[in-house]
Amino acid sequence: MEPFEVHILGCGSALPTTRHNASTQVVRIGNRQYMIDCGEGAQLQLRKSHIHFSFINHIFISHLHGDHCFGLIGLISTFGLLGRTSPLHIHAPEPLHEIMQPQLDFFCKDLAYRVEFHTIDTQKNSVIYEDNSITVETIPQKHRIPCCGFLFKEKPKKRHIRGDMMEYYNIPLYMRGGIKEGNSFTTPQGEVIPNEKLTSAPDPSRSYAYCSDTLPCPQNKDIIEGVDLLYHEATFADSEEARARATFHSTARQAATIAKEANVKRLVIGHFSSRYTDETILSAQAKEIFPCTELADENIIYHIK
Amino acid sequence: MEPFEVHILGCGSALPTTRHNASTQVVRIGNRQYMIDCGEGAQLQLRKSHIHFSFINHIFISHLHGDHCFGLIGLISTFGLLGRTSPLHIHAPEPLHEIMQPQLDFFCKDLAYRVEFHTIDTQKNSVIYEDNSITVETIPQKHRIPCCGFLFKEKPKKRHIRGDMMEYYNIPLYMRGGIKEGNSFTTPQGEVIPNEKLTSAPDPSRSYAYCSDTLPCPQNKDIIEGVDLLYHEATFADSEEARARATFHSTARQAATIAKEANVKRLVIGHFSSRYTDETILSAQAKEIFPCTELADENIIYHIK
Repeated sequence: MEPFEVHILGCGSALPTTRHNASTQVVRIGNRQYMIDCGEGAQLQLRKSHIHFSFINHIFISHLHGDHCFGLIGLISTFGLLGRTSPLHIHAPEPLHEIMQPQLDFFCKDLAYRVEFHTIDTQKNSVIYEDNSITVETIPQKHRIPCCGFLFKEKPKKRHIRGDMMEYYNIPLYMRGGIKEGNSFTTPQGEVIPNEKLTSAPDPSRSYAYCSDTLPCPQNKDIIEGVDLLYHEATFADSEEARARATFHSTARQAATIAKEANVKRLVIGHFSSRYTDETILSAQAKEIFPCTELADENIIYHIK
Repeated sequence: MEPFEVHILGCGSALPTTRHNASTQVVRIGNRQYMIDCGEGAQLQLRKSHIHFSFINHIFISHLHGDHCFGLIGLISTFGLLGRTSPLHIHAPEPLHEIMQPQLDFFCKDLAYRVEFHTIDTQKNSVIYEDNSITVETIPQKHRIPCCGFLFKEKPKKRHIRGDMMEYYNIPLYMRGGIKEGNSFTTPQGEVIPNEKLTSAPDPSRSYAYCSDTLPCPQNKDIIEGVDLLYHEATFADSEEARARATFHSTARQAATIAKEANVKRLVIGHFSSRYTDETILSAQAKEIFPCTELADENIIYHIK
């Protein structure tokens, strides 16, 4: 199966610490890579991660707080120095384009590639990106400013050709592409063999949901139902629940409750407040609700099988 | 003597590497701290260095290439989150203020402190900052865009009171402040004791010069003559001299020649091209001209005695 990985480049919150960088991730699906959020130092983290800069063509920005987007200008500039020529697409709420244009005009006027901004409506669940293997949907969030999460979902895959059946019916090679697409086969005797008999079930379509920064949003249950991996912000522990509410963030327990109610397979929590020098209190509280919880950390790669 | 230190937070060049961050330094003199340049990740490096954020009131930006100023917005924003109230002064060439204002308006609208921009004329040697113990002067540089270095110089210090003379002439305590300022003393018998006899020579005034990014500028010899420490960019080795010239940078040998001709006491070279995974070739070439050369590195602190 093609790789489907989530690389954590930063999982801290607004105040960077010596342990955590600002929010940045790279989702790798096959040979394509998508960046989610781009905090200050994203390009430095990217370099440490050995992710190929040139394979990133789309960046999805959840919201316009600095810890989720201050890394963009440095990244764009460095892409230029590295000789990039293919367009870079930035999907973000307004008015990012307007804020960045003066910087691009001044610092990046000799770029050999285009930077294209695509405005996101954060409060509507819709497909904002699509290629031949995946879709990316927005997940409306509740934060102090317009904010959304992102759902990465593989499209339904093709069924597998059954070698034994190809041999049994002596099906010529040139017809097998059509059978993979769903064709049936008619024998020289005129018997029609249905596709289901010639093929086996396709690989499951995998999915990943990113939810940060937000109050718990149980109304998103249907959107993230059953995802293979959910990254949910868990800025605070139980003791700071009032503060979480006041600042439009979630506690680890609330993140776990979302994971449980949406029947996700695995939960990773992140966006830790700088007050925690050890986040095991957060994972402990989350695990009481949803045992399959992990703590994010810089340079961890989550593989979705 | 009060501390006079240079903390290297980043000494790489335009392309960050896993080894070097973008140009950033903090000069600490007494309990005041001054930042020079502010590359992406400056606030992260600052945190790792255990330098107190709140003691930095002045930031000096040499020129408006991204690797010397992309860290400003994150730093300003974090200062705000940390509850800063005292003004932050940014000394920089135009049009930094104009470029940053839209970002400040959007990301930092609730700051409890003022950010004040002071425009530098990079092509004139002049004092751009002064307090009761130091001056900061610009050092005109030759780069692809307006650029200057900075000379930090302690003002002449007060002479030391000689305890033996105070006792010998039985000089009352209340007069000693005046003697430190240069007064003479008249004995009850009417004899005038000159100040030079009552005091000893003051501590020497120390100095630090920062020169980056630039072609070698021998015409600055008089400005940096005899400084205790010179940081000079040395982006390239001899083999890349043509490239250094084309991009308005210096080789290590050229930096050393400047140090030698200006009779500086110590040279630190930095702003290394990302092509060098080991910079000893640069220090070796510099040392052929100026033996007292050191390679900058992140988190090194140079003490000026």
